[in-house]
Amino acid sequence: MHILVIGGGGMLGQKLVNELAQNNKLLDAKINQVTLADVFIEPKVPANADFETVIKIADITSQEVADSLVSNRPDLIFHLAAVVSGEAEADFEKGYRVNVDGTRNLFEAIRNIGNSYCPKVVFTSSVAVYGGPYPDVVSDDFHLQPKTSYGTQKAMSELLLNDYSRRDFLDGIGIRLPTICVRPGLPNKAASGLFSNIIREPLLGLKAILPAGKEVTNIFVSPRSAVGFLINAATLDTSLLEDRRCLMMPGVAASLGDEIESLRRIAGDEIVALIKEERDPFVEKMVANWNPPPFASKRAKALGFKCESTFDEIIQVHINDELGGRIPGLEK
Amino acid sequence: MHILVIGGGGMLGQKLVNELAQNNKLLDAKINQVTLADVFIEPKVPANADFETVIKIADITSQEVADSLVSNRPDLIFHLAAVVSGEAEADFEKGYRVNVDGTRNLFEAIRNIGNSYCPKVVFTSSVAVYGGPYPDVVSDDFHLQPKTSYGTQKAMSELLLNDYSRRDFLDGIGIRLPTICVRPGLPNKAASGLFSNIIREPLLGLKAILPAGKEVTNIFVSPRSAVGFLINAATLDTSLLEDRRCLMMPGVAASLGDEIESLRRIAGDEIVALIKEERDPFVEKMVANWNPPPFASKRAKALGFKCESTFDEIIQVHINDELGGRIPGLEK
Repeated sequence: MHILVIGGGGMLGQKLVNELAQNNKLLDAKINQVTLADVFIEPKVPANADFETVIKIADITSQEVADSLVSNRPDLIFHLAAVVSGEAEADFEKGYRVNVDGTRNLFEAIRNIGNSYCPKVVFTSSVAVYGGPYPDVVSDDFHLQPKTSYGTQKAMSELLLNDYSRRDFLDGIGIRLPTICVRPGLPNKAASGLFSNIIREPLLGLKAILPAGKEVTNIFVSPRSAVGFLINAATLDTSLLEDRRCLMMPGVAASLGDEIESLRRIAGDEIVALIKEERDPFVEKMVANWNPPPFASKRAKALGFKCESTFDEIIQVHINDELGGRIPGLEK
Repeated sequence: MHILVIGGGGMLGQKLVNELAQNNKLLDAKINQVTLADVFIEPKVPANADFETVIKIADITSQEVADSLVSNRPDLIFHLAAVVSGEAEADFEKGYRVNVDGTRNLFEAIRNIGNSYCPKVVFTSSVAVYGGPYPDVVSDDFHLQPKTSYGTQKAMSELLLNDYSRRDFLDGIGIRLPTICVRPGLPNKAASGLFSNIIREPLLGLKAILPAGKEVTNIFVSPRSAVGFLINAATLDTSLLEDRRCLMMPGVAASLGDEIESLRRIAGDEIVALIKEERDPFVEKMVANWNPPPFASKRAKALGFKCESTFDEIIQVHINDELGGRIPGLEK
């Protein structure tokens, strides 16, 4: 089995390939080769992988580059590459070029191979495809009404994924990811970064800014769960999806205030005291538009997608996976 | 006021410009100029128009052509141009090129003018953005799950319209048209043509084929009502739409069997006897995927969009508007 990961240098792509290297197979299929493609970050190769790893610096906004990425007919393609929400809002043209045209170039590259080539394609969509006003609980047939260019671009890509799958050009599945929290490493340009910053930085003993009100809510999963979603999507029998190829993933609903109280339970008052409230009108305006209510995610749950059930668990996963089970901020 | 009609040579575009020529104004704004653009049909100019009419043969799949269409900054743009459903299904590339890229070229042309240019844009979407499974009644927040490439392309264009409006590049409104019935003139490549054919041809005394089962349902308005929707959309205060720029229009739900019984009430058994059942598996497969249940269309109704309330009325509108109040098939 040959796997292509587009966006393989990103946080999720790197965690995914590390997970693939744990088992070196998917269901009963031995993984022979993994190609990690990214536009500018050189993806790292896991040390323990029992498969050949190919690194490609590739920009799918070029049709020729997209064509070359799939020319050796990978069996499974993870399409994780995207301009993130904050950047897509700030740079309108770049967002459409990468998130819509790049996705379409990839799908066209696959379609143009023909000869019954029909790879499984796992596409990461986002909770940003939704927008209010919301009912009390959001069911799987609630409409997509994005409030950002990023959400618009993801929703357009979902429509393409559905149509290309219906036409048997590819075998797609789109997973709408909740906000990934706690994001390790340095902040990226995702507007949702604030939800991670107020946990990650204090755990390291560093100050963090709370730029919006504590009542602002979002829906979260750990990076570990997000990788689990990708693996579950890749191994799922897509005939179970019928014509509806895109699914809202389960997640943990929490407000900024809930996050802070979880942090207090796990790491104590001293750590929480590192969070300073300092409102940022730009951030406030953006997150005020989210505030998603609980998603029922019935279909995804029935199809075996699993995640944490409390925000405390999400913090604990971060401490275990990223900090070696310690809280550095308490050791200073 | 300067109005641009893209797709001005089509059935709806021609009826629209004739309607504009009745009053020569919209609300209190005098219409000074109407530009009718179409890709291959030379649009006709209404004889009684009190405004300047400009005819342009223009293909918006070229960005330069789209740019030139809006370079004199029309105040109001009707974007009616599309590859219809049957053709978009048969020619995958053409459908995306015209229905997605053409629409985006137009929106980009508007955005690139800048200098606070923000025209009203009325976009004709379609009931084809929907797909089952359906609840008993489809509310305004039911998701779009198109079952055709045409529906996919319209849904993608709606997302663009919303995002470009949110960013203040244009002031958009998208109206999801029910199937227009009875379509005058010759059959076009719209897969929904069968719903018109079985009424139009027998009224003329001509045979018609019923290619699918009588239980197949759809949702309909007359061409007259569709033009009424366009005028209402053009004159609506879009601040009432908030962020949800696209609306399902009201319509009359009817099955093929209902249509035939309406025809019998209006024109008698002899006319109905001209309809011969002759199943076409390709058509059957396509229409089987529609069968939309009643749409509530609450928002559209609250915003003043009006249509017929029975299929009998729809046939009567056709007899009055297209046949001079007569039924030629009864006069033979």
